[in-house]
Formats: sequence, structure tokens, C-alpha cells
Amino acid sequence: MNKIIDINADVGESSVSGPTGNDAELIPFLTSASIACGFHAGDPLTIEKTTALAVQHQVAIGAHPSLPDMEGFGRRRMNISGEDAYRLVLYQSGAIRAFAEAQGTILRHVKLHGALYNMTAESEELSKGIVRAIRKLGGEPVLYVPSGSVMEHIATNEGIRIAREIFADRRYLASGHLAPRHQPHALINDPSESVRQVLSIILNQKCSAMGGETITLQADTVCIHGDHPGCVTLAKQLRRALQEAGIRVSAFQ
Amino acid sequence: MNKIIDINADVGESSVSGPTGNDAELIPFLTSASIACGFHAGDPLTIEKTTALAVQHQVAIGAHPSLPDMEGFGRRRMNISGEDAYRLVLYQSGAIRAFAEAQGTILRHVKLHGALYNMTAESEELSKGIVRAIRKLGGEPVLYVPSGSVMEHIATNEGIRIAREIFADRRYLASGHLAPRHQPHALINDPSESVRQVLSIILNQKCSAMGGETITLQADTVCIHGDHPGCVTLAKQLRRALQEAGIRVSAFQ
Amino acid sequence: MNKIIDINADVGESSVSGPTGNDAELIPFLTSASIACGFHAGDPLTIEKTTALAVQHQVAIGAHPSLPDMEGFGRRRMNISGEDAYRLVLYQSGAIRAFAEAQGTILRHVKLHGALYNMTAESEELSKGIVRAIRKLGGEPVLYVPSGSVMEHIATNEGIRIAREIFADRRYLASGHLAPRHQPHALINDPSESVRQVLSIILNQKCSAMGGETITLQADTVCIHGDHPGCVTLAKQLRRALQEAGIRVSAFQ
Amino acid sequence: MNKIIDINADVGESSVSGPTGNDAELIPFLTSASIACGFHAGDPLTIEKTTALAVQHQVAIGAHPSLPDMEGFGRRRMNISGEDAYRLVLYQSGAIRAFAEAQGTILRHVKLHGALYNMTAESEELSKGIVRAIRKLGGEPVLYVPSGSVMEHIATNEGIRIAREIFADRRYLASGHLAPRHQPHALINDPSESVRQVLSIILNQKCSAMGGETITLQADTVCIHGDHPGCVTLAKQLRRALQEAGIRVSAFQ
Repeated sequence: MNKIIDINADVGESSVSGPTGNDAELIPFLTSASIACGFHAGDPLTIEKTTALAVQHQVAIGAHPSLPDMEGFGRRRMNISGEDAYRLVLYQSGAIRAFAEAQGTILRHVKLHGALYNMTAESEELSKGIVRAIRKLGGEPVLYVPSGSVMEHIATNEGIRIAREIFADRRYLASGHLAPRHQPHALINDPSESVRQVLSIILNQKCSAMGGETITLQADTVCIHGDHPGCVTLAKQLRRALQEAGIRVSAFQ
Repeated sequence: MNKIIDINADVGESSVSGPTGNDAELIPFLTSASIACGFHAGDPLTIEKTTALAVQHQVAIGAHPSLPDMEGFGRRRMNISGEDAYRLVLYQSGAIRAFAEAQGTILRHVKLHGALYNMTAESEELSKGIVRAIRKLGGEPVLYVPSGSVMEHIATNEGIRIAREIFADRRYLASGHLAPRHQPHALINDPSESVRQVLSIILNQKCSAMGGETITLQADTVCIHGDHPGCVTLAKQLRRALQEAGIRVSAFQ
Repeated sequence: MNKIIDINADVGESSVSGPTGNDAELIPFLTSASIACGFHAGDPLTIEKTTALAVQHQVAIGAHPSLPDMEGFGRRRMNISGEDAYRLVLYQSGAIRAFAEAQGTILRHVKLHGALYNMTAESEELSKGIVRAIRKLGGEPVLYVPSGSVMEHIATNEGIRIAREIFADRRYLASGHLAPRHQPHALINDPSESVRQVLSIILNQKCSAMGGETITLQADTVCIHGDHPGCVTLAKQLRRALQEAGIRVSAFQ
Repeated sequence: MNKIIDINADVGESSVSGPTGNDAELIPFLTSASIACGFHAGDPLTIEKTTALAVQHQVAIGAHPSLPDMEGFGRRRMNISGEDAYRLVLYQSGAIRAFAEAQGTILRHVKLHGALYNMTAESEELSKGIVRAIRKLGGEPVLYVPSGSVMEHIATNEGIRIAREIFADRRYLASGHLAPRHQPHALINDPSESVRQVLSIILNQKCSAMGGETITLQADTVCIHGDHPGCVTLAKQLRRALQEAGIRVSAFQ
């Protein structure tokens, strides 16, 4: 069996004024870029620069829609309905798609951001709203979903294309959920440990959870957080390790 | 010769909290609806409701992009570049297009709002930015332009589809420009007078300017402002008068 | 015993573009005005106009801070911390206070809006954050709290000035909480019934809940919603009924 | 004669998500901090952190109000009235003042940002709007003005407290105006050259303009741009040079 894996990161999250972050260095190591849409970060100028960078490095373009919360960087949960989720994703993905097409390519995936990602992972109503948005967008973009989530279940039942996503730089709970960001040791700071976790999941569908338990996870795409200081180093090491393990690295076609 | 004219209005400009304005009453009398995109008014919820209303009444959907200025309702000029204009229109039109397609139709036109409309009418640099956005959007949406403007000239030279727009409820200067909104008598409040002005332009390409001068104007589309209190009455009278004059009313195909 | 009651409404919630709502008609019948601060509605222009209107009619000025949610009109719950609540109220109240002082008066009260009001009513952490903001604002503005809420309890313990608020146009549950806005019959549309409910609470501290149960409520201020179509009629009838019952109507000094 | 000079920088301009910029390193070298108010950068969380940092290092707190333009970082001119300018400054300064007072201090100055600073420097109408806002704020905050500008002239005539501001890291035109940011050589990248320019102005009121002309400038405060990569180095060298030249460095009292 030939293993294939996608490597994605959230990009375009720096403001027009500040430093452009690691995007220019990080993007060449990705196969897919999830681009902030202006609701938690980003604006038309940043979106244009980031899509151009992705196209230049032959990296697939996806939308990274969020709850409308610039101040909280999209990380604060809001009580929205499935209809609200539908509209948020349709609006933001439509905007990013126009920039992708302007660069001569298409919108290849949608990955929810922050609280919207976490809330949808657990909610049937929100998942159905998101699936409806994906269908209405047309062109069959791939929806990134946490392995084992309600969102994976709903999206699979509804027959849309999905990619099960794991996180290189985050630890997992025994339940299979990500350890919450502010819990001690939730973040993996050692690139070698990140690489080991990713290889273990890809090759054996196994991962060692925070309490030492062995859990089962499926991976079609690996996320590297673009705002993590060591993200470029991690991306380099991960690509080398995947190559040595005979795993092909590619975006979804 | 068979005259055809489009009737458009700016809609979706009411907030989610406030009254929905005249949109539900006005839209049935239009052939094209220019929908606010969230930069001077509107939000995903209002966009969805307004596109649904347009589709229900077989009214063509267009984007109504603006400078980013909610407080000033998009009416305050900003010093932006042609590149800024390109990105603003691409982002906002992409978002509206996703809602149009979700309703089973397509984006049929783009009409700039407020200060962006006025600035572009006079600026070669901005007009070129807008034309580039229209091209990149694909699907050949029609760009609404003031008759005789720099924007008309550039768009025609560049070979994109245009519709020359006149205003039913505004008076013109001898130069052929609209009288500025805050000038006395800039607004026409008597529907009969609006109807006379429109018929005169469509049938004879002539209009009586504020100082009494006769000017020449071309019209492919007539705008009725949706926030004008008498807009529904005007729309009804205009449609009846056009029918009696044997002028067909239709959106662009 | 001499009864005194304040009558307040949420105002300044119309956008600069749209109609100014009922504010100009409603404000003369109030004793206190809670002014939207730009986070769920309002902007500097609307704030200025609304504070001027309040001063003209000798109506006390308060801040009406909200979660940052223009699209949802501040009605969608967000997962914020007590620190977030503190900062939101300090920022928004500071801005309104500057307009109050520019009109030669002071900030007399703070009333939370929508989801922030409801969340804080139930949360010790949020209530403490709000109390801290009130203290830091200085000048001892009165905090409006629902009668019997966690917020009332915390604010009383912490020794800040409070006003227990009842709603003229909303029904109550047996628990003493407001019936949720979207529940059938949550709104009282008949002004006579609103007046009866208010008088019963002020004179006897009793109210008939939705299921017919008699509950106990305390009132220092009565809220009339400014976006309710019949709000001006209700305000007039309420003032007349209070006068006839010998109850003095006045803002807090 | 005893020379005194204030050193200020624009701070709080980093987003909540991104790096905090140089603020923590730079603030200890300042005497005054101009804090972004949420219209071109900043939000309640960043404002709170930045005011705390300023107080910790005994640095005076000022407001840094802007046109409402997050995407353009407040650098794009907008066509606003003097009344608009008044309201923008009152709202934003009121919000910052609440945070200053919450930290046990007061609002010591107001410095306009970006396009608003440049537009006001040249406009009598805008300058009058700003002066009115300063008056209405009370407490006599110092208004920072470019030396020789219309804003200086109006503010002096109106009798409000001003500080004439020079820029350490920008070159001047023969007219006495700052060289526009995007003009070649507008920025001074060599800290020694910046220091020489500042000392020359403070000690002799003379500065060498871009074309080699000697111009006259007055300085009460020196600005160091906080988003300039070498700003911390420059601040250190400047403080040392001022000390060696016997010039006292202090905020306005």
C-alpha cells in the first residue's frame, strides 16, 4: 500500500502592518495552505499576497473560515446556529475562492478555524450547516475534519469529500480529542517528538495520548500551526522523515 | 427599434437588527438587485435573505461592493490605489457570488457603491483595477458605469461588458455628472418628474440639467435608490410608464 | 412610603444610514437612556446624536456595552472570561462617558446588552469582571441588574450601586428569569398588560409568571425596548399610569 | 538654558494573535507612549496590556486615535469632516482614558495616527475639530503637532497645550514637512544619523533636509516608530546621546 499525506498550515494570519510571520518561509514546505478570510485575521491585501505565495510554490489553496472575532482571534466560542455556520463559511470561502481563481487555480479545501472548528467537531447541527455550505460552494472542495469527530461522521454520511486531520504540534487526550490549548503540555515543542507522533499515526494509526494511553487516529492531512515559532524547522524535519519512510507528500487532487 | 432597459436598486443595506427597509416591497419591481456585501452595509444573514428574495422574484443578482466604511455608509472618499480597488471588489463580489450560486443562479453584474463608484468614475487607475477584478471574477458580469465617465471609457476600451447607468431620483449637472447628494435639489422627490427624466433619456438621450441646459446621456439601466422613502411608488410608476411607451424592461442576459 | 421608579430604554441602536428608529420620539418619555457603544450597534456619529437628544430632554445617560457582534446584534453568547468582560465594559463605557462629558453631563449608569446581560446575570466570574470595570470607571455609575440574579448578588456584596431592573414588555418564568425572546408569548404586545405588570411589581413586588404562578420581583428601573414598534405608546401610557398611582418617575441621582 | 525633551513611540499596534512586537523592550526607553485605540490597530486586550506596561515603567499614557481603517493600518486618507474628526478622537481617547484611569493614572496626551495626523496637519477644519475634542476631553491633555503645521497654528491660537513633534527616523523636505513614507530615503535606517538629526534640532533648531537645505524646526517631543526593526537600538543610543548633551528627558507634567 502506498501511503500519501497532505501537509497543511493556517496562513495569512498576520496583519498588514505587522511582520508577515513565517508564511514566506513556511509555505514552500506545505502541500496545502488554509488561508485566513478576514473574520479572525486577514484582509483582502493579505489574502492576495498569501494566495500568490501559495501558487508560486504549487501549494493548494483552501479557505480557513472563522467566527467573526478579530479581538479573540476566533478562539472564543459563540452561540451560533447551523444556519449561521452555513452563511459564515459560504461568505468567507466565496471570497477566498475568488482570489484562488484570480491566480489561475481553484479552491481545493475548507478548514474551519479555532472555536468554529472545535464547536463543529462536536455538533451535529453545525456540521450539517457546514456540509450544506461545502455543497453549495460547488467544485467539491475537501473538508478537513478531526479524526473520529461528529463532523467526520456527518460529512461521511452526507457524501462530501473529507480529509481526516491530525496535528503535529499538539497532544491528544485519551478520548481522541486534542488537548485544549491552555492545558499544560498541550503543545509539543520538540520537533522530533512531533515527527514521531505523526509517523506513528500514519504508519500504525496509533498515538500515545497525554495519560500514556494508546489511541487510534486516522490521518489524511497533518497540520502545522503557522504561528508556532519553530514551525519552519518542524516542517523541514517532517518532510524529510516522511520521505525516508517512503510516504508520499501531496495535496488532494 | 426595440428599446430595452434594466431597472436596478441597491438592496440588502438594512441591518439585521433594524427594519428590513423596503426591500421586500421594492424587489418585485426590479429586474436587477445590487446587493450590499458587508463593507458599508450588510452581513452574511442579510445577504442570504436578499439573494433569496431576488431569486424568488426572478430578479438578477449583482454585487454592490464598497470602500470599507460602515460608519460612513461607504460615502466618504478614501485614498486607495488601483490595487486596493481590485482587491476590494474581488473579495466582496466573490462572497456575493457564492450566495448567488447557492440559490442556483449566477452573479450577473457588479455595481460599485457610494464613494467608490464616484471615485472610480473619474479615475483611470481605479477603473483599471476594477476592470481587472471583473475579468478575474470570470463569467462576464456586467459592470454598471455612469454614462460618459472615465470608467465607461476604460471599461469599453478593455472590452468588458458594461451597462450605462442613469439615476431616476437624482438631478444632473451641465457636465453630465450627478449633482452631489448634499446640494439643494439634487434629489428628485416627485415620482412623475423622475419618470419624465428617465423616459426622456431612454427615448431621446436627452435630459434637462439643473441649470436648465439640455445634456446627452445614454441609458442601459435605471437606478432607483432603495433607501428613498418613495422608492416603491416610483418603481411602480416607472414600470407602468415604460410599458406604455413600449419599452421592454429586462435584466441583462 | 414614597415610591420612585426610573424608566430606561436602549437607544442609539439604529445605523447612520437607516432610519433613526423611534429614538427622537421615545427619549422624551424616559428618565434614563442606555446608549449603544459601537460593538453591537452604534458608532461615534450615532452616539453623539443620541447623547445630545438625551441631554436636550434631561434624560440621564448610561452606557449599553455589548459583546463584539454587529452581525448578531450582540444576542449570540460568546465564551469570554471575566477579564474579557472587564475590558469590554471599560472600553465601551469610557467612550460613552467622553460623549456624556462633552455634553456637560456625566455617565450615570451602565446597562449590559443582550447576551452579555444574560450571561453575566448567571455568572459569578463575569459579574466580578463587570463590578471591577464599574469601580475602575469611577464616578459611581449605577449598574442595572436583573432582580434576583447572580449579578445582583455579587454587585450588592461588592458594595457598588445597583438598580434592579424589570421589563415592561417581556413575560417572566416561574424561576423569576425573563422568558427567552424567541419563546411564544415571551413578548407582551398589549400596552395595558405591560402597565399592569409594572404596577403590580412596583406596588406589591408581585408578578404573574407565564405558567400563572405568582413570583416576587423588585424594581428600581423599568426597561422599555426601543426597537419594539409600540414603544412610544407604551411609554406614554406607563408614565400616565405611574403618575395616577402616585409613583414618582426619576433617574438616579 | 535647561533643555527638556519627551521621547514618544506609537505602541499597542500588534494584534492579540501575533507577536507583541517590540513594545516590552521599547517602552522602558520612552517617556510617553501613544497607544493604538482599536481603529487602525489594537483592541481592549492589547490596550490593557500596553497601558499596564507603560505604568510599570513610569511612562506617560496618551491616546493614538486613527481613521477607522484596520486593513490600511490608518494610512489611507479618507474624506472626513471636522465633525467626523471630533467624534473619532473623542470616542477613541475616551476609551484609552478609561484604561489609563483604571491603572491609577491619567490621559496625558493625544497624538493622531497616520493619515489623520497628516491630513489634520494641513487642514484648518480638521484641526478645529481636533481642538474641540481635546477641550471636551477635559484634563488638558497635550496635543502632539508637527512643528510649523496648520495644526500647530490653530491649536496655539485656541490656547490648548501642544508639543511640537519631530521624527527621529524620518527625513524632512525643504518645506519642513516629513518626506512621504514611500519616497526613497524617507526613512533613516542608521541610528547615528537619527541621533545627529535629533540633537541638531533640539540644540540649534536646525535640520538638514533631503535636498541638503537647512531648515528650522522646533521640538518638544521626539517620535521613534515602534514598528521600525531597529527602534530599541535607536531609543537606547538616543537616550545616551541626550544625557551626554545635558538634555533632560521627561514626559509633560
